[in-house]
Amino acid sequence: MTENEKYIGVFDSGIGGLTVVKSIVETMPNENIIYFGDTAHVPYGTRSKEQITEYVLSDVKFLSRFSLKAVVIACNTADSAAREKVEEKYSDLPVYGVVAPASRKAAELTKNNKVGVIATNATVNSGAYEKTIHGYSPDIRVISLACPLLVPLVEEGRFKKGDKVIEQVLKEYLTPLKEQGIDTLVLGCTHYPLLYDVITEIMGGGVTVISSSVAAAEELKKGLKEKNLLSETADSERKYFVSDNAEDFENHALFFMGDSLGGAVEQVDIEE
Amino acid sequence: MTENEKYIGVFDSGIGGLTVVKSIVETMPNENIIYFGDTAHVPYGTRSKEQITEYVLSDVKFLSRFSLKAVVIACNTADSAAREKVEEKYSDLPVYGVVAPASRKAAELTKNNKVGVIATNATVNSGAYEKTIHGYSPDIRVISLACPLLVPLVEEGRFKKGDKVIEQVLKEYLTPLKEQGIDTLVLGCTHYPLLYDVITEIMGGGVTVISSSVAAAEELKKGLKEKNLLSETADSERKYFVSDNAEDFENHALFFMGDSLGGAVEQVDIEE
Repeated sequence: MTENEKYIGVFDSGIGGLTVVKSIVETMPNENIIYFGDTAHVPYGTRSKEQITEYVLSDVKFLSRFSLKAVVIACNTADSAAREKVEEKYSDLPVYGVVAPASRKAAELTKNNKVGVIATNATVNSGAYEKTIHGYSPDIRVISLACPLLVPLVEEGRFKKGDKVIEQVLKEYLTPLKEQGIDTLVLGCTHYPLLYDVITEIMGGGVTVISSSVAAAEELKKGLKEKNLLSETADSERKYFVSDNAEDFENHALFFMGDSLGGAVEQVDIEE
Repeated sequence: MTENEKYIGVFDSGIGGLTVVKSIVETMPNENIIYFGDTAHVPYGTRSKEQITEYVLSDVKFLSRFSLKAVVIACNTADSAAREKVEEKYSDLPVYGVVAPASRKAAELTKNNKVGVIATNATVNSGAYEKTIHGYSPDIRVISLACPLLVPLVEEGRFKKGDKVIEQVLKEYLTPLKEQGIDTLVLGCTHYPLLYDVITEIMGGGVTVISSSVAAAEELKKGLKEKNLLSETADSERKYFVSDNAEDFENHALFFMGDSLGGAVEQVDIEE
């Protein structure tokens, strides 16, 4: 296995990270990908920083069994809570995330310096988006909002235009952000790209909506390109591992990938 | 500590089991109670039977550190998936649950032999309610429905009459059950008692709604009384333990208890 053909290891608390895989496949179709979804501990978004960090370090430990050229923390909650610990413990592994790419894009695209961020409780409580956006541009006013109902609704397939429940819930969440005059909205959870159509309709034409999953794939491509590490193999490979219920994962996967997974799903006990 | 003053150990995947504690306190105010909420692994309702069983055995192992006169599996998912394993492993401990009491009550109360059960995915998939109700009365037609959005909605405080989202979601779930002419509906999840008012309104006067939490407390009282194990101590004690986020648990507890917890909450690492 050449350096370029090594795997990109992607992980998430469950299934949401597949929107990142989708964006990686769209922008870099030749990459070999290992995905791990920690479905035995999903969701991370309602847990404490300490608990999330413990789970995340186990996730990376599992991925590091494979020959990797990069790790992508494809979960805003995990990236917000445990990124530093991962970089500290796996200092030889290039670690990519979702928060920094989406923050950079938001800082670049806002014109009125008012950026909204919607995310899980844990991501919002961490303050990671404020901190990172302010690192790029200290004058931006960041308005963060936890939207805990969106993950369960998306996982139940309720993300389409015309669904009364998701439209009502999103209107309640988004109206205060809209009224505060944001011109940029970051979807700070890898589940939320599925809500892109409903969200853009509610926010209206004047607001740029940024998917952290798309931003993550763009930044990863840039990073690999700079190091001449992009793969050129035609027969790329994708493998999926979950810590519980492989069948359930497969059943939901199509929502998130919008296409077939392109590889088998296997259940593993990562504590072994 | 006399036999009667020993603790009743109650556990759940998280916070839902507090509705069982509430019913125990209402019917047996003198009992000493230890509660464990496995908030590091919540929710159980979307996980596999094997994973739930593993978590449940750890929960009971933790509770068995205390001097117990009974264990109550205050979670329909846990009771459905792992009751047999708990009884097998802790054969000297009287194990009470939620599924059997609610099933017996439904079998007694139905007049037209059509019973509806709403619960989590895991409880419905286990078939535990059908099996148990048929054990009491084989002619009853049991119509079970998984309602995966109810737990997250209740946990967000959206259980009150007039809340557009919970009313819409419940109408979608319950209308098909109503159309099939059930005269009895089991709330087969310890979160659902909070939805009692909205559910009874939607189902209308002809349907008896059974709370598995109330039924569990009634059965426990009967069992303890038969063994002369009811407590008569005036200064009863309640202690709460969680595997993650004690503060978050306390903040949500009032929804579920409808009153103060009546005891301190402590975070513990049960794997230690």
